[in-house]
Amino acid sequence: MQVKEKTQQELSICNHGYHEYLQLVRSFHGHIAPGMVLGGIMVDLAYRHLPEGEFFDALCETKKCLPDAIQILTPCTVGNGWLRIIDIGRYALTLFEKQGGVGIRVFVDPPKLEPFPELKNWFFKLKPKKEQDRDLLLDEIQKAGSMVCGFEEVRLDPEFIRADHRKGFALCPSCHEAYPSEHGPLCHGCHGQLPYIQQSKVKSGAVSKGP
Amino acid sequence: MQVKEKTQQELSICNHGYHEYLQLVRSFHGHIAPGMVLGGIMVDLAYRHLPEGEFFDALCETKKCLPDAIQILTPCTVGNGWLRIIDIGRYALTLFEKQGGVGIRVFVDPPKLEPFPELKNWFFKLKPKKEQDRDLLLDEIQKAGSMVCGFEEVRLDPEFIRADHRKGFALCPSCHEAYPSEHGPLCHGCHGQLPYIQQSKVKSGAVSKGP
Repeated sequence: MQVKEKTQQELSICNHGYHEYLQLVRSFHGHIAPGMVLGGIMVDLAYRHLPEGEFFDALCETKKCLPDAIQILTPCTVGNGWLRIIDIGRYALTLFEKQGGVGIRVFVDPPKLEPFPELKNWFFKLKPKKEQDRDLLLDEIQKAGSMVCGFEEVRLDPEFIRADHRKGFALCPSCHEAYPSEHGPLCHGCHGQLPYIQQSKVKSGAVSKGP
Repeated sequence: MQVKEKTQQELSICNHGYHEYLQLVRSFHGHIAPGMVLGGIMVDLAYRHLPEGEFFDALCETKKCLPDAIQILTPCTVGNGWLRIIDIGRYALTLFEKQGGVGIRVFVDPPKLEPFPELKNWFFKLKPKKEQDRDLLLDEIQKAGSMVCGFEEVRLDPEFIRADHRKGFALCPSCHEAYPSEHGPLCHGCHGQLPYIQQSKVKSGAVSKGP
């Protein structure tokens, strides 16, 4: 007996099967957020339109969910500096090669959400979370795939592309920690840019030697 | 014949063996950066001083390397909002429970670097990268462990702890994308807060249906 071939192709996200991607999401992001599923689809769309074999960096226009999809699926992370976030709240990302600054920007295109009411409700927060139908939402995201996205070619400002190298470090006379010397005579932490309302330094001797 | 027991314990980082942690670093961060090794030790130190069983969030005072150590070793990521970065350039992190705001801040304590000259040179960028001895540096980081760190109890500002919930979205009349309505009549992207110097939207019909 011949085995019937699967006709419906599983959604694939940057060479991961859909369910494999969900596992990555759960493990890194902690839970399967709809924004991570949509985000994976967006990263995949950007990838597919990049010139082959180029090194690239990422720019993300929101800090919600999407940075994690980029960090899971590309070599770009916040800590290695290849992913930068300018949090203006648009659900959009750009992958760009950093020699010439040419990139592909992928965004959610609101009119394209119309055929997917649960997705539209979630995206625009039109319904409180407890009234959302999570299964239907994930189903619509899968069905929609990259149909709800737009993409465009962009060119990045060379000023932005240039990596910011620290010039040197100074010891802050207030906290006695190291900070970038270009910040001035006091570190920005001691200038009140941190949300600590109480600090109590443990004496040197009390620090355990650790593992 | 009795097998001789290993007497020297391998450095362990949040329940990962040292080499296992290096694998995680390579896979997520792309390469074994010294800052990631030191960062792992710092996250481990913070973890060991947290009250057991509490949920916690993370605050990182630099965007270089350390956020990735936090993202690899804790449930806190940029995209899920449990890791927030205030980039003031101090190599320090705080894990805090978000009910009361009490946390443990771990920082590099400069005087403690004195016995580790290669580590000190690297940390303060006293030598150009090509003159650094990478093996010696990693060896010193391993030997030093958390001895080069200090830690302190901190309390976070309740204003900072409160999650920022988006109130609603508007359609930007310029780019026609969704943005947080509290930003005003135009999205911040169209207000010039993004480093694009050229954009060319692909027409709707040209968007591939995707996977």
